[in-house]
Amino acid sequence: MKISVKVPATTANFGSGFDCLGMALPIYNIITIEETVLPGTGIEINVISETDDDDDFAIEHIPKDETNIIYKAVEMLYNSIGQSPSELRINIKSQIPIAKGLGSSASIIVGGLLAANELLGKPADEAALLSIATEVEGHPDNVVPAIVGGLVMTSQEHDGSIIYRKLPWPEEWHLTICIPNYEIATEIARSVLPKEVPLADATFNSRRVAMFVEALHTKDAGLMKLALQDRLHQPYRMKLVPGLQDIIDNLKHEENVIGCVLSGAGPSILVISQKNNLDRIKSIVNDTWENYNVKTDIRTLKVESNGAQILEASYL
Amino acid sequence: MKISVKVPATTANFGSGFDCLGMALPIYNIITIEETVLPGTGIEINVISETDDDDDFAIEHIPKDETNIIYKAVEMLYNSIGQSPSELRINIKSQIPIAKGLGSSASIIVGGLLAANELLGKPADEAALLSIATEVEGHPDNVVPAIVGGLVMTSQEHDGSIIYRKLPWPEEWHLTICIPNYEIATEIARSVLPKEVPLADATFNSRRVAMFVEALHTKDAGLMKLALQDRLHQPYRMKLVPGLQDIIDNLKHEENVIGCVLSGAGPSILVISQKNNLDRIKSIVNDTWENYNVKTDIRTLKVESNGAQILEASYL
Repeated sequence: MKISVKVPATTANFGSGFDCLGMALPIYNIITIEETVLPGTGIEINVISETDDDDDFAIEHIPKDETNIIYKAVEMLYNSIGQSPSELRINIKSQIPIAKGLGSSASIIVGGLLAANELLGKPADEAALLSIATEVEGHPDNVVPAIVGGLVMTSQEHDGSIIYRKLPWPEEWHLTICIPNYEIATEIARSVLPKEVPLADATFNSRRVAMFVEALHTKDAGLMKLALQDRLHQPYRMKLVPGLQDIIDNLKHEENVIGCVLSGAGPSILVISQKNNLDRIKSIVNDTWENYNVKTDIRTLKVESNGAQILEASYL
Repeated sequence: MKISVKVPATTANFGSGFDCLGMALPIYNIITIEETVLPGTGIEINVISETDDDDDFAIEHIPKDETNIIYKAVEMLYNSIGQSPSELRINIKSQIPIAKGLGSSASIIVGGLLAANELLGKPADEAALLSIATEVEGHPDNVVPAIVGGLVMTSQEHDGSIIYRKLPWPEEWHLTICIPNYEIATEIARSVLPKEVPLADATFNSRRVAMFVEALHTKDAGLMKLALQDRLHQPYRMKLVPGLQDIIDNLKHEENVIGCVLSGAGPSILVISQKNNLDRIKSIVNDTWENYNVKTDIRTLKVESNGAQILEASYL
């Protein structure tokens, strides 16, 4: 038996929505899990990178053994019904750039979980899948949109359950994702965050994220411009993303640019704009990063409204 | 010349919306400013309490001289057009309980400003009035709804300008305001707040306030229940409001109760509920506070959709 799952990339945080907001994007990993026939062969993990990166970072850095995060996800699902995984071949066809703030680990976790759930006859419902995925990933911001699609606000409640709501993204607001040719490991991006923050910064972000949700419902670009400001994570991560402050400054006075935020923990940058000044945005970001000797892969994308999907299930 | 302005009470914070949300309520102060004829009479301030309180706290504690906050507001407005106030009789007819977390000081500031603005021929527009009122009060959460009415999210931007948006409050959600017979000065309620808070508490509140706005737009009572939770101010103010934790606990499992939050900095408590179980809510709050020897004035109110209004302007 062999199951393939297509899982979208995700961009989390949106500035003020740190640890709260995430959105699925139309870049995909395809995770295939196949039951192998020979007993005793254990778990085999293969990674095929299909990103445009020429540095093969993906292939090098994804572990091929049980330390791979996908193994933990699959194992937790098996364990939840009193079983253990074995004799599985897991193939990861990776188009989502790794360690760029685009939810590649979330997509692998979600793909592994959904494929394994299908293999086992769907013992886990959505709530269970959300909980396991969040436990493996550490936070729900990326795994939830990877599972349900669209733009979502998420929260892990104290009982471990995951709350989410889909939010409406105005079609006329463009998303341009700018991916530099360097990586930041999420652990490093987490480690630069302080344990405590000024109360004034906390209330600053509260106000901004309230504006974010309101701006979505009323399609208020002026309000969204303010809503994207953040004091809880970007100021601390700025030093990990050379060029970010310059890009923000250079885009600030561009007509039609609503805002510019870190995608997830970075280093990718998400630019939100109105109308069709995308070429201008691309050239500003490109030129700014060129000053830092950074090459950039820039893509204008739509929201992916679908979450992870079973591509094929062959029961041979 | 004599101007009277009717200004609503306000309830701010709504749990997670600390320093962000405020709502006008149908309890009013009436501020009258009269130009007196005799030169050299200066500023005269009279306060008439019309609250049900028998302790006359209002009368005793409102200063009758230039240290009254209304004087500062009126003076700032006069100064903004290069004048100074003099020969004014200011009457404050006070129905809004003082130091109960119901925006009584905001209403006095707003009333003074609007009356003075009318007297001077409306030199200040809404933006200017919002800025001056916020400067005098220290934050925009109460003065903005007192001026514009309804439920609003507010923010003071770094250039001093005040941003606000009106939010839709579902009619089927009832507001019960429970006013205990003790006071908390706002300065004390502010002084117990820490300068720094855990980052996890900051992101907790961000998620909750995002839920708050979403719950309003989708009339989602289940989400609102979560949205009202707060970690940025109520935990620190709990000790100033004996009985609050018990009231929260006693209401927690009541059907139809959506939540229970501090009104402003307290000590009043705002209970939000669905359908008509108001008598039950009243008796629970009443009985709980009675254990603390606290008498309670409990009122079920509608949102006041109008802000401050000029009642009469006589140009005699």
